Amino acid sequence: METVERLIRSTQELLWERGYVGTSPKAIQRAADAGQGSMYHHFTGKAQLARAAIERSGAELREAAEDQFSGSGTATERISGYLERDREVLRGCRIGRLTSDPDVMADPELRQPIDETFTWLRARLAEIVAEGKRNGEYPGSLDPEQTAATIAAVLQGGYVLARAAGSVEPFELAVKGLINLLPEATK
Amino acid sequence: METVERLIRSTQELLWERGYVGTSPKAIQRAADAGQGSMYHHFTGKAQLARAAIERSGAELREAAEDQFSGSGTATERISGYLERDREVLRGCRIGRLTSDPDVMADPELRQPIDETFTWLRARLAEIVAEGKRNGEYPGSLDPEQTAATIAAVLQGGYVLARAAGSVEPFELAVKGLINLLPEATK
Repeated sequence: METVERLIRSTQELLWERGYVGTSPKAIQRAADAGQGSMYHHFTGKAQLARAAIERSGAELREAAEDQFSGSGTATERISGYLERDREVLRGCRIGRLTSDPDVMADPELRQPIDETFTWLRARLAEIVAEGKRNGEYPGSLDPEQTAATIAAVLQGGYVLARAAGSVEPFELAVKGLINLLPEATK
Repeated sequence: METVERLIRSTQELLWERGYVGTSPKAIQRAADAGQGSMYHHFTGKAQLARAAIERSGAELREAAEDQFSGSGTATERISGYLERDREVLRGCRIGRLTSDPDVMADPELRQPIDETFTWLRARLAEIVAEGKRNGEYPGSLDPEQTAATIAAVLQGGYVLARAAGSVEPFELAVKGLINLLPEATK
């Protein structure tokens, strides 16, 4: 693997594990098996490398989500498939967790790919809810934008509750509770 | 205000603003206007002081929630009141945000008051959902434990989405979407 690629992947892992504040340039170089000169040859510093890593993680998150969204099935089946797919729940969301990091939030260059990822996710979920309405699966009173935000929030909040409990159980309860509240399931 | 109290309150603020990894003993002493000797006279170190601060924040969170939970109104009205009360949304949840902090999660003494706070919150919400079922407000098929986890997750995830967007809008959408999904509102 090329050095740039190793640097990006190592930074993705370290951001997930340690957050931005807790990740030092030295730790990145060690994990990527790259020298200091090599890192600063390819990137101006930790911030630029972190931006590349967050963009990569966002692209991977979107790709995995789209696998579920573009599959076959009713809206509720596709939403459930997305919520219930295999996840490393106790590690939390690679993107969502970064919103707790004050230095990430304070830097528009770092917040932007996070914002874009969730904006995309909410828009895609809203499209699926709107499809469900057109198909008669959901009632006309269901607001796609609101419902999409609720679905994305349950996932992100489920991670928070699971990490607090040191157990995947609250995540699984929250997801099941939401699926049960979706109109099809309560009919 | 006494030194111990100033130390605890300053640590609460710094944990909220900067997280655990990003909060140094020096910063706590500066914010509390307390000397190093004074801090270590009252606490064995940053970890013990952080534990006291997290316990305090958890107690305050429970008190504010109980104000809404024990009020009058239907289950949905009390749940909505809790979700829609005034919050500093863009600062995130003082307790929930700490679950992103690897050093907090790795220390059972620090994770415990976070776990207890969310366990209490989910249990109280489950009681209110169960009341709603007994009153005939909610259908028998509604699972109190699952629904409670969903409600708590929407709140925590709403904070994440709002911080990602740099705007309270996704939080408000997620909350409205959830209230609209609760059985009473969709009848």
